[in-house]
Amino acid sequence: MKAGKLAQTGQLTAESTHEQATAGLKACSPEELAALQRLNAEYQAKFGWPFIVAVRGPRGTGLTRQEIIATFARRLENHADFERAECLRNIHRIAEIRLNDRFGMEPVLGNQVWDCAELLAQHSDVTDGALTVTYLTPAHQACQVQLVHWMRECGFDEVEVDAVGNVVGVYHGTNEQAQRLLTGSHYDTVRNGGKYDGRLGIFVPLVCVRELHRQKRRLPFDLEVIAFAEEEGQRYKATFLGSGAVIGRFDMGWLDQKDADGISMRDAMAAAGLDPKNIAAMKREPAQYMGFVEVHIEQGPVLNEIDLPLGVVTSINGSVRYMAEMIGVPCHAGTTPMDRRRDAAAGVAELLLYVEKRATFAPHLVGTVGMLHVPGGSINVVPGRCQFSLDIRATTDEARDAFVHDVLGELHRITERRGLHCTLEETLRASAAPSAPEWQARWERAVEAVGLPVHRMPSGAGHDAMKLDEVMPQAMLFVRGGNSGISHNPLETITNDDAQLCVEAFMSMLEQLGEG
Amino acid sequence: MKAGKLAQTGQLTAESTHEQATAGLKACSPEELAALQRLNAEYQAKFGWPFIVAVRGPRGTGLTRQEIIATFARRLENHADFERAECLRNIHRIAEIRLNDRFGMEPVLGNQVWDCAELLAQHSDVTDGALTVTYLTPAHQACQVQLVHWMRECGFDEVEVDAVGNVVGVYHGTNEQAQRLLTGSHYDTVRNGGKYDGRLGIFVPLVCVRELHRQKRRLPFDLEVIAFAEEEGQRYKATFLGSGAVIGRFDMGWLDQKDADGISMRDAMAAAGLDPKNIAAMKREPAQYMGFVEVHIEQGPVLNEIDLPLGVVTSINGSVRYMAEMIGVPCHAGTTPMDRRRDAAAGVAELLLYVEKRATFAPHLVGTVGMLHVPGGSINVVPGRCQFSLDIRATTDEARDAFVHDVLGELHRITERRGLHCTLEETLRASAAPSAPEWQARWERAVEAVGLPVHRMPSGAGHDAMKLDEVMPQAMLFVRGGNSGISHNPLETITNDDAQLCVEAFMSMLEQLGEG
Repeated sequence: MKAGKLAQTGQLTAESTHEQATAGLKACSPEELAALQRLNAEYQAKFGWPFIVAVRGPRGTGLTRQEIIATFARRLENHADFERAECLRNIHRIAEIRLNDRFGMEPVLGNQVWDCAELLAQHSDVTDGALTVTYLTPAHQACQVQLVHWMRECGFDEVEVDAVGNVVGVYHGTNEQAQRLLTGSHYDTVRNGGKYDGRLGIFVPLVCVRELHRQKRRLPFDLEVIAFAEEEGQRYKATFLGSGAVIGRFDMGWLDQKDADGISMRDAMAAAGLDPKNIAAMKREPAQYMGFVEVHIEQGPVLNEIDLPLGVVTSINGSVRYMAEMIGVPCHAGTTPMDRRRDAAAGVAELLLYVEKRATFAPHLVGTVGMLHVPGGSINVVPGRCQFSLDIRATTDEARDAFVHDVLGELHRITERRGLHCTLEETLRASAAPSAPEWQARWERAVEAVGLPVHRMPSGAGHDAMKLDEVMPQAMLFVRGGNSGISHNPLETITNDDAQLCVEAFMSMLEQLGEG
Repeated sequence: MKAGKLAQTGQLTAESTHEQATAGLKACSPEELAALQRLNAEYQAKFGWPFIVAVRGPRGTGLTRQEIIATFARRLENHADFERAECLRNIHRIAEIRLNDRFGMEPVLGNQVWDCAELLAQHSDVTDGALTVTYLTPAHQACQVQLVHWMRECGFDEVEVDAVGNVVGVYHGTNEQAQRLLTGSHYDTVRNGGKYDGRLGIFVPLVCVRELHRQKRRLPFDLEVIAFAEEEGQRYKATFLGSGAVIGRFDMGWLDQKDADGISMRDAMAAAGLDPKNIAAMKREPAQYMGFVEVHIEQGPVLNEIDLPLGVVTSINGSVRYMAEMIGVPCHAGTTPMDRRRDAAAGVAELLLYVEKRATFAPHLVGTVGMLHVPGGSINVVPGRCQFSLDIRATTDEARDAFVHDVLGELHRITERRGLHCTLEETLRASAAPSAPEWQARWERAVEAVGLPVHRMPSGAGHDAMKLDEVMPQAMLFVRGGNSGISHNPLETITNDDAQLCVEAFMSMLEQLGEG
């Protein structure tokens, strides 16, 4: 397929022949060509403008034909307003890549981060192409070995695997009496997860140390980087095993938890050569640390939508989760007058819309009914039961609790008025972790130092920093996620240019601390 | 367990020792006694008044201990306001039974109806105690044989099984030139259904003919009673096979439909000795009939709630059904701000509440979302998809269509505002069948003749009368269902006294026609 023809049919942008060649579009098979033509016709029919994609992709080296076709098919499902914005974002990316070329800029450090993510993602618990790395599996241990290797290669002075499987590296400073800076994130993943969730917060300081070491520079303090072994709670019920142990809050009762195959955590650790007797000694002395910083992919749509590579976290949201069931009376949908119903689903619908409304009462509140089901529902039966979940988050515990209070009050009013009742089980309650102001300010200066406007935002998801917050000041930096910030999904992505900006911001943070 | 003790603990009413003895409560096992004591304590704690049940039950001959315990346990789940009304209804039933005793009244014809229902319910497709009789199964054929036997026994002059398995009986009148009266209902059931749905409309005219025959009375017209073989559409997708054939609208294409075991309707009919070639000849000549009347259990809560045994149907509601899926964008429940969501479940919730509100705009409208499901929903993921059903009914096609029009308009507004889209498949559209005024008036006079106030009401459910409506005038009489009119459920029930009133009303209808 010729590039000229592609441009003519409007399937791709007017990007250069070179770019299309890089993507291998000249070598389309007849099937691929047919797929592109069909997609193009459907896209034109649905949106009325040509499909625009930055064919050089997030690394700048070109998407494969398969990736382009998959992207095309996926974006065809978008709503028109969203797809219009996605086209503009692709135009922005095309411009970014071409300006780099024109000015001879290469995001060398960003590429290192990006390539680390690709390499580490070669290890997976499953062989179907999905990325799944759960606690202490062979893939998990292969990641551990790789991280140890990279830390040594980067020039860390001390590298060790601790009693829970965290990989810990220390890059010595000039003053060994000075408080250390702690940073890091987790290297386990959810099932069929993304390559950046957690791992980005390991790679960025690794690349910084590699660069410091290359320049033969020493900071006036030790930099300690921890690749936490576990955060996601996928293999065992317990979560934050890595950071929990570091703050001295590893519950030894967790060792008896069993995975889906009946293997206890104790046995899994023994098989991995880890000795739980050494967990207690992992506890850090907070006085020896300045604080904890963590880089993380946003896992949300905000930075992508406002076209900013970096965001400064103001707080990790506190949350409460409930599993609930509304109970009414099932009855015949044809014969039961509206005023004689006790419709469980209608009660839940009313609560859902209240949650949605209540979340708008203050900034940064979110409330979600993610699970919703009328068990055994029939088209002609008024629902007697309706199961649902409730997830409420806020930047402070007070805001969260006020939200919950109002929702429970509304639930009470709904059940009274409709003659329903509702069972409610609290399944999680996590405290908010506001960023330490001086640390948040350092990230803000770092973002400004790389030439970006400061965007402050809460973190809706939990992070290792939440655990560290219990013992020392912390603050986080977010990196924009592509594909609308989709997370816990193979489509999770960042660009090499954004990674470059993040490494530079991290360097700036280190320099601020060196000057202080 | 002594009756005095039962009364003392307030577990039952102050009914006589005789009534409690009839129920066998004196012979409680230690387990049963413990169950009653536990239920009594929970009931007192929940409601604060003693449990009241008419232990002589719907036939007046006494509930079993197991039935009493099951009723107790079930009613413990009621909402307080409903349970209070249920107690009052039980007091009413106790009074009814005692007044019958005091005045020497025995609902002889009602008992015959009641006992027929029990006997016919001995035949079931399943052996687990549930009542399931689907088209042309061995249980279905056993019912057919029983109905033929009863019709002959009752004194019908002609009894035959027709080409689709309907059992047809004719009780000759004095004038064979006169137009016939047609009546009847279906003898198939839903899976795990009730004993009265359909069947009551067969037993009532059977008992009337038995009584006429016993009195050696002839009407001035032929009375034709059809026990329709199929109405519920359980074994095959097609419904109303029995009444459809009678009005000449049996679609021969249905013969190729297959049941869950892959048996075609054609093969099932052949195995049952039925010849589809004879179906066409079943078509009745409407000019030969005065009209069609049908007695049916209400299948709804209205008569039970207003304490009336009989209700006169004004119209069988027209209906439309849809299966639908709302499609938004799944995203992280923690990281996605409320104003950036496309929450499919929230869109459905809004539509559900609109349907509920719109149904109140005019009398006798009902609208129901009976199925509701977020497929693969997670507690921390904003729903990207939400499947639901929609069932809308009204007494006229115009009212139904206006309702649907408004709901679809609202759906459009919701999807536009929320950036969602919705797929909608219409799965059923049935026209309303208003009662023929002169026939409705006859039922009204019949209800007055047995000393009851006239209550007019639409039928929310479809009935064989709906099919007959296509070719001749029709009107229906409803009988109160106990247990809040629960239907398509083993708890479906009527009393012998209500059945007696229904037989008397049917007799009055026949006498009016004889006089006319």
